[in-house]
Amino acid sequence: MTPLPRAFALGEIAERFGLELKGDPAKPIRGVSTLASAADDQIGFLANPRYRSQLATTAAAAVIVGPKDASEADGRQTSLLVAGEPYVAFARVASLFEHERPPAPGIHPTAVTAESAHIAATASIGPHCVIEDGAVIEEGAVIGPHCAIGPDCVVGTQSRLSARVVLVGRVRLGRRVLVHPGAVIGADGFGLAFDRDHWIKVPQLGGVVIGDDCEIGANTTIDRGALEDTVLEEDVRLDNQIQIAHNVRIGAHTAIAGCAAIAGSSRIGRYCLIGGGAGIIGHLTIADRVTITAMSLVTHSIREPGEYSSGTPIQESRLWRRNAARFKHLDQLARHVADKNKGHPHE
Amino acid sequence: MTPLPRAFALGEIAERFGLELKGDPAKPIRGVSTLASAADDQIGFLANPRYRSQLATTAAAAVIVGPKDASEADGRQTSLLVAGEPYVAFARVASLFEHERPPAPGIHPTAVTAESAHIAATASIGPHCVIEDGAVIEEGAVIGPHCAIGPDCVVGTQSRLSARVVLVGRVRLGRRVLVHPGAVIGADGFGLAFDRDHWIKVPQLGGVVIGDDCEIGANTTIDRGALEDTVLEEDVRLDNQIQIAHNVRIGAHTAIAGCAAIAGSSRIGRYCLIGGGAGIIGHLTIADRVTITAMSLVTHSIREPGEYSSGTPIQESRLWRRNAARFKHLDQLARHVADKNKGHPHE
Amino acid sequence: MTPLPRAFALGEIAERFGLELKGDPAKPIRGVSTLASAADDQIGFLANPRYRSQLATTAAAAVIVGPKDASEADGRQTSLLVAGEPYVAFARVASLFEHERPPAPGIHPTAVTAESAHIAATASIGPHCVIEDGAVIEEGAVIGPHCAIGPDCVVGTQSRLSARVVLVGRVRLGRRVLVHPGAVIGADGFGLAFDRDHWIKVPQLGGVVIGDDCEIGANTTIDRGALEDTVLEEDVRLDNQIQIAHNVRIGAHTAIAGCAAIAGSSRIGRYCLIGGGAGIIGHLTIADRVTITAMSLVTHSIREPGEYSSGTPIQESRLWRRNAARFKHLDQLARHVADKNKGHPHE
Repeated sequence: MTPLPRAFALGEIAERFGLELKGDPAKPIRGVSTLASAADDQIGFLANPRYRSQLATTAAAAVIVGPKDASEADGRQTSLLVAGEPYVAFARVASLFEHERPPAPGIHPTAVTAESAHIAATASIGPHCVIEDGAVIEEGAVIGPHCAIGPDCVVGTQSRLSARVVLVGRVRLGRRVLVHPGAVIGADGFGLAFDRDHWIKVPQLGGVVIGDDCEIGANTTIDRGALEDTVLEEDVRLDNQIQIAHNVRIGAHTAIAGCAAIAGSSRIGRYCLIGGGAGIIGHLTIADRVTITAMSLVTHSIREPGEYSSGTPIQESRLWRRNAARFKHLDQLARHVADKNKGHPHE
Repeated sequence: MTPLPRAFALGEIAERFGLELKGDPAKPIRGVSTLASAADDQIGFLANPRYRSQLATTAAAAVIVGPKDASEADGRQTSLLVAGEPYVAFARVASLFEHERPPAPGIHPTAVTAESAHIAATASIGPHCVIEDGAVIEEGAVIGPHCAIGPDCVVGTQSRLSARVVLVGRVRLGRRVLVHPGAVIGADGFGLAFDRDHWIKVPQLGGVVIGDDCEIGANTTIDRGALEDTVLEEDVRLDNQIQIAHNVRIGAHTAIAGCAAIAGSSRIGRYCLIGGGAGIIGHLTIADRVTITAMSLVTHSIREPGEYSSGTPIQESRLWRRNAARFKHLDQLARHVADKNKGHPHE
Repeated sequence: MTPLPRAFALGEIAERFGLELKGDPAKPIRGVSTLASAADDQIGFLANPRYRSQLATTAAAAVIVGPKDASEADGRQTSLLVAGEPYVAFARVASLFEHERPPAPGIHPTAVTAESAHIAATASIGPHCVIEDGAVIEEGAVIGPHCAIGPDCVVGTQSRLSARVVLVGRVRLGRRVLVHPGAVIGADGFGLAFDRDHWIKVPQLGGVVIGDDCEIGANTTIDRGALEDTVLEEDVRLDNQIQIAHNVRIGAHTAIAGCAAIAGSSRIGRYCLIGGGAGIIGHLTIADRVTITAMSLVTHSIREPGEYSSGTPIQESRLWRRNAARFKHLDQLARHVADKNKGHPHE
């Protein structure tokens, strides 16, 4: 039987996270939830205006709200925790209720570790891991089951490889980096030279450098550089199934959604947001604070902050087919309209 | 040397699957094949009209056909097995010739299993698996090599994890679920809150629930929910390299082709067909029996059954470039045409 | 401490690779680099004209250039190595400085190998590998950590599976095939038949055949055929996260960039170039020497060599939204223009 989760008093939570409390400080809190599903010992939050109507009906013990919603909600029965940024406050409160059991330090007996590897005493190496020559696992790092850490790779302090992560070679992870299962970091970049009638492989001699506080999603791949390194600056957040090619550089605090791909040698700025499935071709430069919407393809450098898109809207296929057929002759259509214009000088 | 495959009499096959036989019931059958390549001890099928002409030339011992093709084929030499749904009948017949050797029950000595895990006596745990605290492996389940089953995960009766599957945490698979290699189920959803100048991680406290008879393709990822669960109802079929974000719900009998991606909290109906590489952004609702064609992007909810598309047709790049350049000014073109119209009130 | 890399005399390098040297043959060379970062014991190269200005400023000991750049660079201080194809020459020279330590032959004691598997004496089987019944590992093949080689699979002479590769079943790799981590070859194709109200699985009875000198990227998936084999001819180069569905055939020397996907039974020609994220729907035929640009979707067969594209250009979202809205009525716009034309018979 699962034991009852630990309870915190609502007032204790307000104090710990610097939130203004409107309500009963003694109320016991055992978890977090959505407004729609919360029980009366759980905290909900309101960050997205589309859920505002749920404030009247939620059974939550308390709701984290912004100052504006707090004033409008006066007189309601539920307790309120008022925060400048309700979603940030919620993230902090929710972390109280995470039940991750950090594994004990030490090396599992089934792990295979090279004698020349340096593994800190406080690090944890899970079952069936392989740690190769010269690899360095720093203090407090957690290497989950089935990870392979290639020659001379470094896993920084407090970093965590959830399970089945491969660092192939010449990979350096900073501190507090979190890598999800299936990620492959440091495989050969896709470097080919065409020699008359066949391909020859271009050696990939660079590495990968991942800054502090980065997160790398499940089954994401980050290739090592051809000559210099592939680089993620600090606090870069990559979702699942992303492909980062060789020699890409991603600026600090940029977040990229699932299935996006960045081709070789492109440089992405800081504080960018790249939508799911978006593509950026090679050798481009993207400025800071650029947003690319989902499934857009970037084919030239972007020098100005702002939001960029490509593609066409979804439609019933029956209608879409007609429009798509016209797209194939759009240039002709535009020429035709322009020509008619020219033919009517009085217009 | 591979032994000769087991033979079935054609009449025995007809009877077993309730098919009408026009031909020799004693004919021995040792396998299935395409019409073009079949040998005279193999059964072919005709489901796609584009292959109809091969009916005249195939060397197959028998061909599974629909009633219409059966009547038109009268007088041909090849035997016929008549089925209402020839492709369904073929799938059933073909299963006679699968030579999967189910692994013996028991736990491989190289597997690492927590004492608190519950592993049914008829389950099979392959080499180098890791089964963590509180995990439950039900009767007849097969866990192939290199799988990691996280704390408190459940693998239902007769389910099969082919090889190297990770269930990270709070994952429940129903009965007869088939998961292909490299799939990662239950990794953290991509939840981030922006705190002035950096990201903070939003704890992902939900789980994943996979219904009976689902199939999950190779290297597909299904994240666990932020607060509630990510859910696949029964008989959902996912191809390879699909990304299902946190809190998505997919209705029963929906099939999704390779490389599609569904962003957080979207709800997909029952009996939907999502094409390869298609994207669905977050917080949408898609009705039952909706088809999305390959590489389309869905940016708003779809309330009506039917087929939907986006994108433009493939063209020679030389032509495409001209049309694409015009797309950048399509609104101007449309305004221009509309203005001219207004200027000609007699039209 | 890393030992100083081995040095080669510049003249020795010129001779070994048949390059014309303009400069000091005694100059010691310890590595390769970009023009911008090279030290004076490193060789750079100039293949992309956009970097030509760096020829005047590089600190490289020597630069590999084409004949045209060589004549224009006369009088400069840096030594030159003149090559017909500078990038090909660079690839060869760079390979001198790769420091891959090939693993020793033999089977790691943690590997689990079936008695009926045939493993050549010169092959290397890494830690925690699983080699199943009837598998064949030929001379000089290297199977890195955490690989699983399914029943009756063949890994050809000198092939290398970097780490954590799964060959599921009925997979034959030729000679000198290189497979990167996370690749899954030979999983079931996505074959489903719809039986009134639910899906039934169509057995996938074919295999996968990979030709000599192919390269398969990280987390790429190649499904086995339904009845016949999925085939990659020789020297096919696949980047990361590519999906190759069942019964696809890819012609020799074709290269495919990351995240592309090819649906079932399509046949791709020889010497094709498929861009990143591109999609090819099922049952198509693509001629030899076809180039598909990034994220294009191919929906019909292509009979002529050449370059093909689909999609729309990236724009500021503010402008894109207006144009995209017009696309939804493009057919009406075109009809309207055509109608007006008809109304003006004098034009």
